[in-house]
Amino acid sequence: MHAVLSALADPIADDMREVVHVFEDELRSDQPFVGELCARIARYRGKMLRPTLLLLTGRACGRVTREHHVLGAVVEMVHMATLVHDDVLDEADIRRGGPTINRLHGNEAAVLLGDYLISHAYHLCSSLDSQIAARRIAETTNTVCEGELMQVSQRGNWSLREDEYFEIIRRKTAVLTSVCCELGARFADADEETAQHAAAYGHDLGMAFQIIDDVLDLTSTEEEAGKSLGRDAALGKLTLPLIHALRSSGEDRRARLIESLTSGDGNGRGTRLYPVELSASIEHASSVARSYVQSAIEHLSDWPPSEARDALTAAAEFVVHRRA
Amino acid sequence: MHAVLSALADPIADDMREVVHVFEDELRSDQPFVGELCARIARYRGKMLRPTLLLLTGRACGRVTREHHVLGAVVEMVHMATLVHDDVLDEADIRRGGPTINRLHGNEAAVLLGDYLISHAYHLCSSLDSQIAARRIAETTNTVCEGELMQVSQRGNWSLREDEYFEIIRRKTAVLTSVCCELGARFADADEETAQHAAAYGHDLGMAFQIIDDVLDLTSTEEEAGKSLGRDAALGKLTLPLIHALRSSGEDRRARLIESLTSGDGNGRGTRLYPVELSASIEHASSVARSYVQSAIEHLSDWPPSEARDALTAAAEFVVHRRA
Repeated sequence: MHAVLSALADPIADDMREVVHVFEDELRSDQPFVGELCARIARYRGKMLRPTLLLLTGRACGRVTREHHVLGAVVEMVHMATLVHDDVLDEADIRRGGPTINRLHGNEAAVLLGDYLISHAYHLCSSLDSQIAARRIAETTNTVCEGELMQVSQRGNWSLREDEYFEIIRRKTAVLTSVCCELGARFADADEETAQHAAAYGHDLGMAFQIIDDVLDLTSTEEEAGKSLGRDAALGKLTLPLIHALRSSGEDRRARLIESLTSGDGNGRGTRLYPVELSASIEHASSVARSYVQSAIEHLSDWPPSEARDALTAAAEFVVHRRA
Repeated sequence: MHAVLSALADPIADDMREVVHVFEDELRSDQPFVGELCARIARYRGKMLRPTLLLLTGRACGRVTREHHVLGAVVEMVHMATLVHDDVLDEADIRRGGPTINRLHGNEAAVLLGDYLISHAYHLCSSLDSQIAARRIAETTNTVCEGELMQVSQRGNWSLREDEYFEIIRRKTAVLTSVCCELGARFADADEETAQHAAAYGHDLGMAFQIIDDVLDLTSTEEEAGKSLGRDAALGKLTLPLIHALRSSGEDRRARLIESLTSGDGNGRGTRLYPVELSASIEHASSVARSYVQSAIEHLSDWPPSEARDALTAAAEFVVHRRA
């Protein structure tokens, strides 16, 4: 796990071990090939950001239960399923410093492994006494799929607006971090207002997280990030810094930017832009992310002070300061 | 809907309209691109075999409830998700006489649309009062994914045995038809023994269905079947007739068969074998399918006579006599 996030997770270290236990138990298979694929994706279990949010919210709201452990495994499985399918969509080769499933075993295995993960996520959900979590998780995955489909349908649209971009990342990323915090609160029997603040915190953190992810796609190195980079623009996927750069350019520079974004090196990869050319746009995106973090933290301001609440604040700050 | 199955579905015609209603309601989206994709896959809703089984079993066991309508939509969505992802895996161009989603909108959209369908299937499940159906459906999709992964891992294994083939098709096909009949019975408050007979009927019918599907991949024309054919062998996927043919061949003919199976026409398609060369093997597979149908029908022998039970018998017979 990432060192900073790992420190944040101190108040929930034992609970996180339980989450990992539930996760691994659920994915056991009598089929060697399936076991091999699941062992491979254990590498993807990097930051464990979503279970961390779910457990910390539960702790900040008073308690962490067996349901939190199960739901922590559920949200991590949902997240991993989206990673595995994203890597197919993006034709990515590297994830968390190792080869992707599609690179190792082909697109078929990667599509099916994503399906397998999502199926097991719902299977775990259905082991809980109430339908509440299953309902909220399914609503969330409905929205995540819509966000991803919107993104695909907007590929190569060089006129994508900021508000459209925000709606895409809200659906594909922020609804999941939001539901993590909401369920963390609800399963600690938080009142409705607290659950809504938790959801709003998770939403804002998710927005900031995705914006910074999109910035890092331009500014980070593959070594730092441990995954394939620079593919957004090459695949015609506009992100906040690029939208800003295109919007603030005259016609000539705009045409030159699009030309530079779409020209590949023959391996399906776009030419890496020099970040210096985009520095004002990167600063714009970073500042939007910082205001989401500020807003996220404010949603917690009425909560009673606790180690877990401090960790949630630190998690929000981590999101914009990470290098990978 | 297929004419013969449509006639079988007479006892449940009104219920099927309800299923379609639930199905279409669930997939409504505020996103035009998503709506367009869903309209396209409405074409895939061909035989509606799985909801037909679920409703007929309910009717034969005494009643069809609101839960049956919801679950009918659920199993059809699960089935469609597998079709959409299968077409990506098989690089198929044609499905039910029209272009596939991957052909029209690319693999990305097809992967995501499959995810969208499966997410909505679980979303519908979570609207029911009890977790029973959600649990059984998730167990089933776990197994379906394992079956598909087993199939992928066995590609190009020209020594695949019959028992391995049966285990693959049990997981990828028969568990779903089985759970349709089981849930149809359970939600009609059938006793445990009846529910188990229903499950066994559905299992045997599913086995027969898949074997005949694999036979039709060799013997049918794309015009008759309305989907891409002859891809099993080209993709190194052994099916019952091919396993039989390879096993009953001397070394020379075996080598010639494999050569002929793997040589493509340059478009990724295998050379179509003359069925005459495989006629004994096709007869072997068809006879195995017929014995599954016989066994399926026997599971219903203690059920009280009814129009719905007759329709279930006819459905099992239809499975081996269909041309597509």
